[in-house]
Amino acid sequence: MDKFFFPESVVVVGVSSSHTNLARRILANLKRFGFTGRIYAAGPRPEEVEGFKPYKSVLDIEDKIDLAIVLTPAAVVPQIAEECGRKGITHMLIESGGFGEFEGDGSPTEKKLLEVCRRHGIRFVGPNCIGIINRENGLCTPFARVLDRFVKGGLSAISQSGGVGASFIMDMTLDFVGVSKFVSFGNAVDVKEHDLIEYLSDDPETEVIAAYLEGLSDGRKLLETASRVKKPIVMLKSNRHQSSKKIACSHSAALAGDDRVCRAAMQQAGVLLAQDYMSWTNITKQLFLPPMRGKRLAVLSRSGGHAVLAADAIDEFGFELPAFPQSFFEAVKEYFQGGIIKLQNPLDMGQIFYHPILAHIIEEALKLNEIDGVLFIHTYDAQEEGDIVHTMLSQIPDLIRRYSKPVTVVLHTQREERTYVRENFRIPVFRTPRFAVEAMHYSRINHEYVNSKKAWPYVSKDPDIDRLALPGAALEAGRDLTLSESLEFCEAAGLKLAPWRRVISLNEALQAASGLGYPLALKLCSSETSHKTDVGGVRLGIRNDSELREAWGRLEEISDAALEAVLQKMSEPGIEMIVGGKTDDSFGPVVLVGSGGIMTELLEDVSARVAPIDIDDANEMIEELKGVRMLKGFRGFPPADTKALATLIAKVSGIIHQVEAIAELDLNPVIVHADGEGFSIVDARVILKKPRSRQGC
Amino acid sequence: MDKFFFPESVVVVGVSSSHTNLARRILANLKRFGFTGRIYAAGPRPEEVEGFKPYKSVLDIEDKIDLAIVLTPAAVVPQIAEECGRKGITHMLIESGGFGEFEGDGSPTEKKLLEVCRRHGIRFVGPNCIGIINRENGLCTPFARVLDRFVKGGLSAISQSGGVGASFIMDMTLDFVGVSKFVSFGNAVDVKEHDLIEYLSDDPETEVIAAYLEGLSDGRKLLETASRVKKPIVMLKSNRHQSSKKIACSHSAALAGDDRVCRAAMQQAGVLLAQDYMSWTNITKQLFLPPMRGKRLAVLSRSGGHAVLAADAIDEFGFELPAFPQSFFEAVKEYFQGGIIKLQNPLDMGQIFYHPILAHIIEEALKLNEIDGVLFIHTYDAQEEGDIVHTMLSQIPDLIRRYSKPVTVVLHTQREERTYVRENFRIPVFRTPRFAVEAMHYSRINHEYVNSKKAWPYVSKDPDIDRLALPGAALEAGRDLTLSESLEFCEAAGLKLAPWRRVISLNEALQAASGLGYPLALKLCSSETSHKTDVGGVRLGIRNDSELREAWGRLEEISDAALEAVLQKMSEPGIEMIVGGKTDDSFGPVVLVGSGGIMTELLEDVSARVAPIDIDDANEMIEELKGVRMLKGFRGFPPADTKALATLIAKVSGIIHQVEAIAELDLNPVIVHADGEGFSIVDARVILKKPRSRQGC
Repeated sequence: MDKFFFPESVVVVGVSSSHTNLARRILANLKRFGFTGRIYAAGPRPEEVEGFKPYKSVLDIEDKIDLAIVLTPAAVVPQIAEECGRKGITHMLIESGGFGEFEGDGSPTEKKLLEVCRRHGIRFVGPNCIGIINRENGLCTPFARVLDRFVKGGLSAISQSGGVGASFIMDMTLDFVGVSKFVSFGNAVDVKEHDLIEYLSDDPETEVIAAYLEGLSDGRKLLETASRVKKPIVMLKSNRHQSSKKIACSHSAALAGDDRVCRAAMQQAGVLLAQDYMSWTNITKQLFLPPMRGKRLAVLSRSGGHAVLAADAIDEFGFELPAFPQSFFEAVKEYFQGGIIKLQNPLDMGQIFYHPILAHIIEEALKLNEIDGVLFIHTYDAQEEGDIVHTMLSQIPDLIRRYSKPVTVVLHTQREERTYVRENFRIPVFRTPRFAVEAMHYSRINHEYVNSKKAWPYVSKDPDIDRLALPGAALEAGRDLTLSESLEFCEAAGLKLAPWRRVISLNEALQAASGLGYPLALKLCSSETSHKTDVGGVRLGIRNDSELREAWGRLEEISDAALEAVLQKMSEPGIEMIVGGKTDDSFGPVVLVGSGGIMTELLEDVSARVAPIDIDDANEMIEELKGVRMLKGFRGFPPADTKALATLIAKVSGIIHQVEAIAELDLNPVIVHADGEGFSIVDARVILKKPRSRQGC
Repeated sequence: MDKFFFPESVVVVGVSSSHTNLARRILANLKRFGFTGRIYAAGPRPEEVEGFKPYKSVLDIEDKIDLAIVLTPAAVVPQIAEECGRKGITHMLIESGGFGEFEGDGSPTEKKLLEVCRRHGIRFVGPNCIGIINRENGLCTPFARVLDRFVKGGLSAISQSGGVGASFIMDMTLDFVGVSKFVSFGNAVDVKEHDLIEYLSDDPETEVIAAYLEGLSDGRKLLETASRVKKPIVMLKSNRHQSSKKIACSHSAALAGDDRVCRAAMQQAGVLLAQDYMSWTNITKQLFLPPMRGKRLAVLSRSGGHAVLAADAIDEFGFELPAFPQSFFEAVKEYFQGGIIKLQNPLDMGQIFYHPILAHIIEEALKLNEIDGVLFIHTYDAQEEGDIVHTMLSQIPDLIRRYSKPVTVVLHTQREERTYVRENFRIPVFRTPRFAVEAMHYSRINHEYVNSKKAWPYVSKDPDIDRLALPGAALEAGRDLTLSESLEFCEAAGLKLAPWRRVISLNEALQAASGLGYPLALKLCSSETSHKTDVGGVRLGIRNDSELREAWGRLEEISDAALEAVLQKMSEPGIEMIVGGKTDDSFGPVVLVGSGGIMTELLEDVSARVAPIDIDDANEMIEELKGVRMLKGFRGFPPADTKALATLIAKVSGIIHQVEAIAELDLNPVIVHADGEGFSIVDARVILKKPRSRQGC
């Protein structure tokens, strides 16, 4: 991978002297950024471009070439790769469009390109991208002009979209956040986002990694990679909704993952997932300050109104505003003219017109053990108060260093004044209190990640689960398991079910009933009927033989084949939950728990994790549910056995992870009894993977 | 009110030549803004300040004074008001702090001030504010310097906080949104937010009203006023959470309303409620473009990535992206070089480097009947492409006028470039696609409001409800109604209850049971026990005399007085809902509906309206519930009788509105049966208003 970022020689392929030629702009950028390596150009015509005489083919160049940068029509790219291969070039940046993002999934041009590159051992970034910028050696390959104000620093960014990546780098530059490396990787046909993150995690110049993704090449691999990275990763993931999937399909060929699973996976990976573009930029800025080590904020504001807005955000993001101790008031009260102010947190400093004092108050707040960070909100007119405010702000970087706590600054002032402050004092400046509080929240989350991160997956396989067998009949017929097969499978896996019998005649049913004891439920068995209740295939609360006879008769009416049913003991009451697993296209095995019944169906009160997980993860999943209050003892009900529920979730995680043939496992409902009394699984469904046609966009 | 905005003469009280004097800055602002009226100064010392010789008292001025602007210590303000009254001044702006926001609710200084002003017939804005700016006559009373770049235009803003108001006006000015009037009204002791909104609604220069509120002086009055205003009102309401209430208390004395009720009321009033400060500014900008008349957007973007981000926002805000008709493609496809692009909506225009073409494409999109507005996203480097982009952007204002549809512009470029575009082409420019889509959403909502707004309240009183009487015993004892009293009251109001009898002995119960028929429920009657189930005071599903005997015995055990109970027929199954009413501190009578049981308690799935409402409103409330899918027929259940439910909600609205003694009416659960079969109210609770001590902050 190093040759992508530190090539000693490059060739730009596709250059011509035409005014509309885009490849020539790459040459211009390389020159303007002072690329330290040797530069060559290749193109069909011999006229000099940007001071370079294009070679007809890379094969004509005598020098050894580390990296080829290609911007030609898509159709000729495989041929160029062929020539690169023969020339011994092992790394390519392919910026050309017209591949998967245009041809759709399974793009023939992409396939051909991949075949050529594999054959020659070529690794390539792209196609459909703007390539790489490396501030260390002046490598700069976008075909649009790149801002030269660009400060060198610890931020590296990768972006699937060249446009979003370029905007981000521009915005960070204008905020004077220094940049080390930038990669636009487009369709990610060969080099994937996780390859790049892995590279940047080892790069000594990179302190913070930012990523913009529209789809995921391999979610599971990304989770594995990111979980090992100790640097903060802050990600913007678009393409979360329906309409956006349409455009993303054409824009880049990557498949979009399910948003809920993606969010859960990034949490498991310790990746900060930003809500939108603005949050992404704000969080990134904040990460260059010391971390928020806790939830305790001091808010110092010149405007009471902005402090109220900050307090709304503080509640939204779960921060606390500890009362200031008496010592703080003693230290600061002398600064207040007139004293028409309440000494509280947030501190309204509207009465202070002598600004140097503000730096003292910030320092007093930083000194406090009960404060993890300071939010400083200032409102001023740059023309009137600029100079005196600058004197005060110039002390903030040193205060931050000395106390190793963040001072996050919100300035309500002229735009150019915010820019001036950013440039001259190199502190991040935020636009509104809410943006600042949100960024501090992510800083805190990142601090938690840093302290708790462990390389995923950390759960080893359960040999008992490996020994489990699925019913041969279902595997052979390529059908899903029937109810009784599903229940048998769960039982074999050691999951505790409400007592049940498979029955195929009324006599058998009556006999089984005397063994199980009433009340009972009678359920139709079929691999077809997914929602049995919808067709009336379930009869609950059967209290005696005569009711059983009647129920059996009803089932016979709706059953179109020989009747097979499950007779099951009605479970003792408890709290209905759903536990399940499924195979996600991008993340593979996923385990889920949801509040049962209508809570799940109507409100999607579901928590997910990529499997395998351990008991701690399972407990975390339970805690995330809105319905968790039901489990904790609600309105006089006893607390439920969440311990047993967590064990079940972890077990299902193991099953969906290890039994590869299962596409979906659904335990619904699981009745969770009072603490210490476990749970009863009342219904189970196992759906097997089917060979399926690859779905195009 | 006119004299606040158009005084012919003003006096600034509190002026001195001291460098730290704030009142002198008011004089400076009046001069700098070219106030067209006559200006006087008053203060204790005779030294000339800003060219004015201060009078010792307003009484010494010979001229007639329309408006006194006061910035002195709070303690002397009542005395100054006294002098103003004697001088015949009828309008005051009181900027001084140190009143309710410092002394707390029931501030003695505020009371005294109010008493003096009432006696003299003085109306005043403030205290604790920065007063008024009127661009028409140069009135400018803030004591901080005000930006002079300030364009004149159709925006007027009112703000409880001077700081937030000043930031907003500054931000709008930097966006080149023209301003007409600005009022910072602080503690709103006399002139309230609704007075100001009423004034601005009649002001011919004001096209859009923006408001920042931390608390509400009188929510009901605000609702009434705003519902009559035909101009867009866009409001930022802070102080929505717990911590923020603390600071708001000190910052301004206004009481905070319940956020849910506030949101519902502003919807009823046709007020656009912004999520946060940034949304507030973005929505305001958008309102100066033609309205979004529907949900159908065309997205034209140079960057596919930003288009994907836009599409995420489009789904979030419920917009649609109609497919472009063939005619559109015929019209635009010739503009595409090479043609490596999918002709779809969003349209990725990344391949177009000749910018003038973009204006043609925008126009082609505006021409389409199937498109209500255009989101135009452009990414460029101002140094490289500025000139050619400007030529294209300069055509947009004319396109907007000609087609009377919005073209909302997002520019990812340098900051100063965005400012340049705003200033030179006078079009709002947005920072990100999401901000733009959000603003377009509110534009659409406002368009709906404009078409559907009616002056609230529009429901006349129900004479039958006026005739209802509450039990004298409860009124006299100042206690809540018992269960049987509550049920009787509901019955008298014509609400359909599950059949019931009040019983005070086992014999009575057994006799009543034979009349009602089993199964039955037995419930403890008490005005104390609010959650009867918590103490075991409810026994459900009693199937025969012996079970009734047992249940009676249990109730006797937990009852500490002579047992009084309600025996009630178990309701047929249906969907559990909650219907109720309550009296909100700020908005008065409020009606509520919620999905019953745990849905309401755990998930707060509740919809509210300020009462009275009509059936249409009630139906809207039902539609807002997450649980509405349950009512519409879910998983094989028949659709429920939402018609009957809506009638009940409207009736409860009438009761809580007209029966003034009721603090809270709670029908929980209401079992809604299948369509055409109505509902059964199973339980009812009526809580009466108590005299209560005024709660300080």
